[in-house]
Amino acid sequence: MTQKTITAAVLVIGDEILSGRTKDKNIGFIADYLTEIGIDLREVRVVPDEMDDIVDALNALRKRYTYVFTTGGIGPTHDDITADAVSQALGIPLYEDQRIIDLMLQRLKPEDMNEARRRMARIPVGAEHVENKISRVPGFMIENVIVMAGVPSIMQSMMDAVAPRLQTGARMIIETLESVGLPEGIYAKGLGEVAAEFPGVSIGSYPSFGEGRFKNSIVVRGKDATQVNAAVAAVNALLERLRAETAQA
Amino acid sequence: MTQKTITAAVLVIGDEILSGRTKDKNIGFIADYLTEIGIDLREVRVVPDEMDDIVDALNALRKRYTYVFTTGGIGPTHDDITADAVSQALGIPLYEDQRIIDLMLQRLKPEDMNEARRRMARIPVGAEHVENKISRVPGFMIENVIVMAGVPSIMQSMMDAVAPRLQTGARMIIETLESVGLPEGIYAKGLGEVAAEFPGVSIGSYPSFGEGRFKNSIVVRGKDATQVNAAVAAVNALLERLRAETAQA
Repeated sequence: MTQKTITAAVLVIGDEILSGRTKDKNIGFIADYLTEIGIDLREVRVVPDEMDDIVDALNALRKRYTYVFTTGGIGPTHDDITADAVSQALGIPLYEDQRIIDLMLQRLKPEDMNEARRRMARIPVGAEHVENKISRVPGFMIENVIVMAGVPSIMQSMMDAVAPRLQTGARMIIETLESVGLPEGIYAKGLGEVAAEFPGVSIGSYPSFGEGRFKNSIVVRGKDATQVNAAVAAVNALLERLRAETAQA
Repeated sequence: MTQKTITAAVLVIGDEILSGRTKDKNIGFIADYLTEIGIDLREVRVVPDEMDDIVDALNALRKRYTYVFTTGGIGPTHDDITADAVSQALGIPLYEDQRIIDLMLQRLKPEDMNEARRRMARIPVGAEHVENKISRVPGFMIENVIVMAGVPSIMQSMMDAVAPRLQTGARMIIETLESVGLPEGIYAKGLGEVAAEFPGVSIGSYPSFGEGRFKNSIVVRGKDATQVNAAVAAVNALLERLRAETAQA
């Protein structure tokens, strides 16, 4: 009955995210996508376009999680060093893949092929292509590392291409009680008790603030439907009891 | 003339970001804020609400960077364990700060103060408050770790409170050449040569994709205005030469 848990990390590569110039849109997309297909995203890191930082992060993450998804740094310019960093981290040399050159030549005149563009055809020996329908030049997967573009539409197309090849586990069942109408400080103790009662389920309380007041949502997550449903029922019972007490007071 | 470089990392704490439920808005805000005041954001990590993950990340980051900013996990519920994690990482015990209880009592009836709400007054011995104007309950700063809320408006108010106390370095000067009108593959080689010529300056090329085509921007960043301006001039000269060549071809 127990399904293997499949885990992942995302490594966002790019000075532009750290300087604030570009607001990342990829983390949220990949988080939703992986949750949907039954892969648990456990960690995200954002690092600059620096070889040592990328290599260190790759090595920490690829040993710890089933998959590591990288975004960014696979274009033709000098700051695109992701392929080199993957090569260094895994100890696998790069080669120029003629199939990628051919793909590029479908859209480029032969005289426009140059040294910089050829860099985009360099992938580690043994890597599989991760196709995209937008710009055609693929990302790649080598061992448990999936290298994708930073441009959101291209990254999204690459996710679609690689997803069917990935191991997946049980999907997370997520039940959200929106706007429960009580302050966190009122239900915190009871909610902690419910959480302790259902150790196989994760229960979170998420305040948001708008129009001058807090709105709290409670999220119950787990992979066993029976347990999730039982925990949701326990949370609902707690909230009903507290609402009655609050109304009386 | 050389000013000290002040660095920072952001540690986002929360299952809700990793599951995709909540789309992070804090990383981009903090990135902009720190760039503006002369602190270099060098790394971001997102970890779940798990003690070991938070402690490990805190210890890795606080030793490496001038400051670590955390967001999330400081409410009254069982999944709010950031203060405990900071205590464990730094080896400094928590205490219940009466000044925070008093702040909370400005908005709560004494009979509504409870054990869960008191948890929000627990901060490490020696920590300074990081005030916020929204919900009043402060975050805190201890050693080089700044603990802030996850709710964006509260986090933003806390950044305003803590910023004047931080060491800052030379501000990064950022010059952006928007939509340069040439493909990356055309200017990549020349841009790499300009980048090599100006080692004190960082030059990035950022494609974006929309309406069926790529738009490329080039960003020149550095702390020495003379060098930045010289690099921008060199990039502009390169682009003009390439535009002329492309027009002739």
